[in-house]
Amino acid sequence: MNTTNIPYKIYLNEDEMPTSWYNLRADMKTKPAPLLNPGTGQPLTADELKPIFCEELVAQELDETTAMIPIPDEIRSFYKMYRPSPLVRAYCLEEKLGTPAKIYYKFEGNNTSGSHKLNSAIAQAYYAKKQGLKGVTTETGAGQWGTALSMACSYFDLDCKVYMVKCSYEQKPFRREVMRTYGASVVPSPSDSTEVGKKILAEHPGTTGSLGCAISEAVEVATKNPGYRYVLGSVLNQVLLHQSVIGLETKKAVEKYDIHPDIIIGCAGGGSNLGGLIAPFMGEKLRGEADYRIIAVEPASCPSFTRGTYAYDFCDTGMICPLAKMYTLGSSFIPSPNHAGGLRFHGMSSTLSQLYHDGYMEAVSVEQTSVFQAAEQFARVEGILPAPESSHAIRVAIDEALKCKETGEEKTIIFGLTGTGYFDLVAYEKFHNGEMSDQIPTDEEIAASVAKLPKV
Amino acid sequence: MNTTNIPYKIYLNEDEMPTSWYNLRADMKTKPAPLLNPGTGQPLTADELKPIFCEELVAQELDETTAMIPIPDEIRSFYKMYRPSPLVRAYCLEEKLGTPAKIYYKFEGNNTSGSHKLNSAIAQAYYAKKQGLKGVTTETGAGQWGTALSMACSYFDLDCKVYMVKCSYEQKPFRREVMRTYGASVVPSPSDSTEVGKKILAEHPGTTGSLGCAISEAVEVATKNPGYRYVLGSVLNQVLLHQSVIGLETKKAVEKYDIHPDIIIGCAGGGSNLGGLIAPFMGEKLRGEADYRIIAVEPASCPSFTRGTYAYDFCDTGMICPLAKMYTLGSSFIPSPNHAGGLRFHGMSSTLSQLYHDGYMEAVSVEQTSVFQAAEQFARVEGILPAPESSHAIRVAIDEALKCKETGEEKTIIFGLTGTGYFDLVAYEKFHNGEMSDQIPTDEEIAASVAKLPKV
Repeated sequence: MNTTNIPYKIYLNEDEMPTSWYNLRADMKTKPAPLLNPGTGQPLTADELKPIFCEELVAQELDETTAMIPIPDEIRSFYKMYRPSPLVRAYCLEEKLGTPAKIYYKFEGNNTSGSHKLNSAIAQAYYAKKQGLKGVTTETGAGQWGTALSMACSYFDLDCKVYMVKCSYEQKPFRREVMRTYGASVVPSPSDSTEVGKKILAEHPGTTGSLGCAISEAVEVATKNPGYRYVLGSVLNQVLLHQSVIGLETKKAVEKYDIHPDIIIGCAGGGSNLGGLIAPFMGEKLRGEADYRIIAVEPASCPSFTRGTYAYDFCDTGMICPLAKMYTLGSSFIPSPNHAGGLRFHGMSSTLSQLYHDGYMEAVSVEQTSVFQAAEQFARVEGILPAPESSHAIRVAIDEALKCKETGEEKTIIFGLTGTGYFDLVAYEKFHNGEMSDQIPTDEEIAASVAKLPKV
Repeated sequence: MNTTNIPYKIYLNEDEMPTSWYNLRADMKTKPAPLLNPGTGQPLTADELKPIFCEELVAQELDETTAMIPIPDEIRSFYKMYRPSPLVRAYCLEEKLGTPAKIYYKFEGNNTSGSHKLNSAIAQAYYAKKQGLKGVTTETGAGQWGTALSMACSYFDLDCKVYMVKCSYEQKPFRREVMRTYGASVVPSPSDSTEVGKKILAEHPGTTGSLGCAISEAVEVATKNPGYRYVLGSVLNQVLLHQSVIGLETKKAVEKYDIHPDIIIGCAGGGSNLGGLIAPFMGEKLRGEADYRIIAVEPASCPSFTRGTYAYDFCDTGMICPLAKMYTLGSSFIPSPNHAGGLRFHGMSSTLSQLYHDGYMEAVSVEQTSVFQAAEQFARVEGILPAPESSHAIRVAIDEALKCKETGEEKTIIFGLTGTGYFDLVAYEKFHNGEMSDQIPTDEEIAASVAKLPKV
């Protein structure tokens, strides 16, 4: 029961929403390593990136010095349709756990894409429209990113071609249908609509596809068709920049209510949510103005931070993308079919990798069954059915709150609840039926894929 | 683009949330007709209702005079997990339509049950807990009500048995899985766990069930098991009472921002959403303090208001429930497999029926394909994928806004957006594939079922 002056849900007013994004790199003493051209081994220039990405996004990608980048009015108007998102005090969870800890979560799931992905999708669509493009292409695995981009393109009347990993296309027809509602064309990948798709189909008849293949097809279509560019939902600096809106709102809310976070927790796949949530807090830490424990949570089945290597690697399994320096399991690493599709990425954002390398944040990996236990516990007392990805953060937030119960410490914990699990009920069903496993890779498996890292 | 002082989303503060529900019947000069015992034809007494419903809910069901009924603190705490719900100004829809009308919607979908049903589920679960019961039983067709009740029972640690129409159980495994996440036992109906279920299975081997059969099973289990009662998610006076929280919040929000509604629109199946949304506005109208156009929207496939008869009828197809006086198509009327499962009910709340009969509100029926056109148009500009039920209200709100475009009138329209369509994508898929039909019953079909109305 709420006995404090802090409401269950803190909603900022519209005039308290951020007017600029925050570019964390501006405050980093050691900047993240640049993207390299895999052919030359040299840092990619703006001119090399412009055939693939929109011009203004290339500028954002390469800008390491401007701290505050204004959010265009058109994007702020769209944000107001589903933002500010609430910072929720988990009173019921605290009571259930019997912890003296104060738990908050920033909930990004109250929009039809079901996650925070929309924050960057609308920005990327806006810049494509501004440049006068006809449309954009992308890939999607689990489907959140494809859905968010479809919504954004529909709003700006842009064509949107989504290459969806074929097994997801077939197993998640509802995700596909949401995208169609927003007018996107959704193509199962590999397809015979691209050269690379045809080649793969010829070599592997009956394949159900992979993210690497879908990326290759999307990039091919973007670069071969005038008026199209390719867009990506995580990993890139530009994406972390747009996602800083999560952290900026959180910061404003805790200041408004005089809340002092001790621990900030987020799930980490490519890093878009975590990088956005922590941005302004990490900025304070980098500038020596405040200190926070910052914890990245990853699946034990795909543990790039906790068991990977800090090195240059391809961002895609097809090895056609630029090289990024990051914590990686190797681009040939095949994560087990964990249900947190949004966290099944072999690498990690270069920015977050550098910060982790420099000791500014911690990382922990958690096992799938314990993640779903936390998800169910959370759903029952807080009323929200969480996405499997988000539930990684819930798991560690609960663990930290239980430590406080033992020590009696009244720590303040904030975690990112990135989305809802309405399209993940096959996973919940397996959990209920006791059919879920943890599928942790062996040291040998990781060593084998790391051994194939490109020589730079 | 927002050029007024009204934000995109009006969120009340927690201390502005209602502390009492509003009982519309207190202001009705002609009270709704009482429930009758089908055996005796006499009004049902509290003692006759108590073996079926919780005591305090029986009192609420029969109370025609108390206008304001306090909301217990425990229920208000739960409400704060997902309420106040936003009153959204549909700026983007207005711009797309090019209408001078001002459109608002009260959005009840931001909770995991996906609809307004949770407002009454938590109240009914609370009174069951307060009475010291072990659990409750209910039926569910489309699944929103069963999901809401599962969430409510989980919160109060009550056992929850949901009889789910077998074809829904098989076609909507994800709805079932959400209920299981909340600890409910979900039984496909007809089942061999009840006498009535066994009888039906013997007579109709292989049947995929009906709502009437599921009600019969749920009532049997509630009345035969000590410590259990039956609960229902619509039609009843108690449900409309709890749902008044929707209208009370809406009223407070429009007063706060000096908004003067001209037209209030809601979809109507059993009447729970419409009755809740309009309650305080209708109260003003009944007391002669203000006037509003109030429009009930029903599917053309199940048009109880617009083509039904005002008469006593059974609430269930199994004809074991009390008789209610209402606009009805006859309890033997089988609505076509329209995708708005929540609106496929042959009758209508007695309270709303009396108000419609007395000319205090209008009703209109709309066809399924035009409903999905409106749903898609709305989703693309407002960012929310609406439930098929809610989309009935969207259809008429758009139609009224387009009339304003013709006449140049700046009317203020409010409609109820009851929920989200994340579990209704089979319907969207059929719409996209051009496989959706309108299935309007003939006059002869309606006359045939009305001819079977019970003689009272």
